[in-house]
Amino acid sequence: MLERLRKEICEVNLELVRRGLVFQTWGNASGIDRKKGLVVIKPSGVSYAKMRPKHMVIVDIEGNVVEGELKPSVDTPTHLALYKAFSEIGGIVHTHSHYATCWAQARRPIPCFGTTHADYCHGEIPLADALTEAEVAENYEANIGALILRRYASLDPMAYPGVLAAGHGPFAWGRTPAESLENAAVMEELARMAANTLVINPDAPALEGYLLDKHFLRKHGAGAYYGQKKS
Amino acid sequence: MLERLRKEICEVNLELVRRGLVFQTWGNASGIDRKKGLVVIKPSGVSYAKMRPKHMVIVDIEGNVVEGELKPSVDTPTHLALYKAFSEIGGIVHTHSHYATCWAQARRPIPCFGTTHADYCHGEIPLADALTEAEVAENYEANIGALILRRYASLDPMAYPGVLAAGHGPFAWGRTPAESLENAAVMEELARMAANTLVINPDAPALEGYLLDKHFLRKHGAGAYYGQKKS
Amino acid sequence: MLERLRKEICEVNLELVRRGLVFQTWGNASGIDRKKGLVVIKPSGVSYAKMRPKHMVIVDIEGNVVEGELKPSVDTPTHLALYKAFSEIGGIVHTHSHYATCWAQARRPIPCFGTTHADYCHGEIPLADALTEAEVAENYEANIGALILRRYASLDPMAYPGVLAAGHGPFAWGRTPAESLENAAVMEELARMAANTLVINPDAPALEGYLLDKHFLRKHGAGAYYGQKKS
Amino acid sequence: MLERLRKEICEVNLELVRRGLVFQTWGNASGIDRKKGLVVIKPSGVSYAKMRPKHMVIVDIEGNVVEGELKPSVDTPTHLALYKAFSEIGGIVHTHSHYATCWAQARRPIPCFGTTHADYCHGEIPLADALTEAEVAENYEANIGALILRRYASLDPMAYPGVLAAGHGPFAWGRTPAESLENAAVMEELARMAANTLVINPDAPALEGYLLDKHFLRKHGAGAYYGQKKS
Repeated sequence: MLERLRKEICEVNLELVRRGLVFQTWGNASGIDRKKGLVVIKPSGVSYAKMRPKHMVIVDIEGNVVEGELKPSVDTPTHLALYKAFSEIGGIVHTHSHYATCWAQARRPIPCFGTTHADYCHGEIPLADALTEAEVAENYEANIGALILRRYASLDPMAYPGVLAAGHGPFAWGRTPAESLENAAVMEELARMAANTLVINPDAPALEGYLLDKHFLRKHGAGAYYGQKKS
Repeated sequence: MLERLRKEICEVNLELVRRGLVFQTWGNASGIDRKKGLVVIKPSGVSYAKMRPKHMVIVDIEGNVVEGELKPSVDTPTHLALYKAFSEIGGIVHTHSHYATCWAQARRPIPCFGTTHADYCHGEIPLADALTEAEVAENYEANIGALILRRYASLDPMAYPGVLAAGHGPFAWGRTPAESLENAAVMEELARMAANTLVINPDAPALEGYLLDKHFLRKHGAGAYYGQKKS
Repeated sequence: MLERLRKEICEVNLELVRRGLVFQTWGNASGIDRKKGLVVIKPSGVSYAKMRPKHMVIVDIEGNVVEGELKPSVDTPTHLALYKAFSEIGGIVHTHSHYATCWAQARRPIPCFGTTHADYCHGEIPLADALTEAEVAENYEANIGALILRRYASLDPMAYPGVLAAGHGPFAWGRTPAESLENAAVMEELARMAANTLVINPDAPALEGYLLDKHFLRKHGAGAYYGQKKS
Repeated sequence: MLERLRKEICEVNLELVRRGLVFQTWGNASGIDRKKGLVVIKPSGVSYAKMRPKHMVIVDIEGNVVEGELKPSVDTPTHLALYKAFSEIGGIVHTHSHYATCWAQARRPIPCFGTTHADYCHGEIPLADALTEAEVAENYEANIGALILRRYASLDPMAYPGVLAAGHGPFAWGRTPAESLENAAVMEELARMAANTLVINPDAPALEGYLLDKHFLRKHGAGAYYGQKKS
């Protein structure tokens, strides 16, 4: 079932390790088949050295295992909450990639200090609140998803590569699993750039709003003219 | 004698270099055979390029060489003190890995800033005191062990991947030599994450206690549900 | 047409990725044939994995495509402005290389803290102003070039490896495409060195003027005696 | 002439690049044959890709070229000043390795923050003064040597791996060229550790004097017991 997507999700998970975005088993990727309403996700705590497409777990949108002998990632409820709310996304990548996690631990959204950031994000990369004790006590992983959605209540998820969960780490998404992988890599580099910008100038200013718009809209939306798009 | 353990300890020592946790000869790994009461440890100051299982030294729990033509690591008395006191550990890895050593030099325990840390440590990674002049003068290496034990007097060693010796560097341990190697690698990444979290926010708060408990207990103890454990 | 230059520019673009100076598609290199008045430049937003010499675009000095089926880099107008004004340069490399971009985002010229810097730059690496809203609204990329030229109004472009565009990133140049590549690499290392110098001493002093002159002139100009030049 | 030493010095120069201690042509290594009073040193500004033993230059202790078609490194007078004054050294390595250069640019000696440092240096790694305008004007490179010697007037050069030249970079030495290479690598890692220690704690204390003595003397001098030395 969903052989192609299982293969793709397995590959994205392995690629996260190769690119240094995942250390140990600190991460998981998933993809959704919107027509069938099924999600393919990494199993929980399985060694990357032995991970094969057949180990991927298929769950329905409520999290019931449809196929697979292993337990799905403990973060599955977070993935599902995002798939339900963000209809345009086709893939999600959760990592503890170094610098993005440092911003999450520092409890700060990643500021837009330059055009590199503006090419991918229409403003700072949002930080979702930390959970209260009650939110941790019950349905912890689902509540992480709920807090991300609360943070995105008035934001367009397609205008950002992802989000930071406070005290935890980044979730990246994209139209496809491959795009969510690229966005996870981009978020990590933007996070590292923003940190080292602060090293040089702790009072570095945010990019001017009109430059932010220029760069974001040069690559995204109707007026885009970057790349080989036909105008 | 203990051929298998000698092979394993040699391999762990070499893997420390491959993973960038040991530079020059700055580190040593050991393992214990609890039934025989014997410890296998790296020889002192031997080049990694020429290190073979046959060079590993076997000592009894008092440090007497039982087999091996080379002198054991100068840190042997520290290893033995830990094996005597922590009955559950089967392997010890001492390194001067970069960021963990920086925290030891900065004389600060590694704070728990996020869930990545909480997945492995039930709180900050402890810092053992620096030695007094008298403690250095006699039985220096054994006294490092004594100070670690004093720091752990009311702590469970299995709730942490290791300890920092002030002004010196990290000691990691685990149920097996392989687990002590993984814990050394994890401590280094947690140390690096905590340092870069401070770069972004010098006043970053410690993770909320209930989140610390949630993540640590999600992976450890009776209620664990991470990975493929049967519930 | 210009087969040799197309090959060279393709190679410089690929080498930027190999050396870690370009991540994703964040960069572009060009070269000029001064006799023919033609510029060879990277196409816009094309994957490096599939980039071949035939994909390079040839434009005239006003930016009209003379040969090539793809659109040239969106930064082409910036390259052209520099080629027009700086008659001695034969190649330009634009990157978002990590540390140089951090200085651009921090809105600071890269200070001359040492002789390594002075060997390549006759003073701090200049920072061009950020664009005003009006300058962004029309001819954005050409205006980046105009601001660089304004910053260089009284400076010799051959006394520096390049420039930082505020909030954006570095542009490097050289007598040839190969030299512009080396200068991009050197700027990145100087940027990283200057950042870590500030980590150690936020009040690090600029190099003494007579040492700056000594080192720059030891390698450049009539009295140079570094390398295998005949005196 | 001195075929073996030429081969060794060429290899040390190439190894500096492989280990990331030398970028571009920013460095040079030399060795001395004390009996013959001859020094083998890298030629000035030659590409590492094409460097062969035959390119090494042989000079006498006054700097006269005895064999070799290329000009010796511009830093030759500095090397010679050190060989003349420090009779126990057999090799010198000058680099602009990243972190050691940052300390030199920050105009600070590298503090002894821990036992890793104390294993190699009997205190902070000294910083030689910057040159005055007069010292730069005449015999610049020889005067760098003179300032190093002034800084070492009351220090034992064998108790340190090298020195920092203010605003410039590190010079490392050793009993042999191979040992000077190792010392250059060690100085770089100690420099990086000290910088990141400051990131964690800007007020990190120097290692206690008795711990400094213990570690340095555990490895050096009559009472050494580290490694496989016979006691």
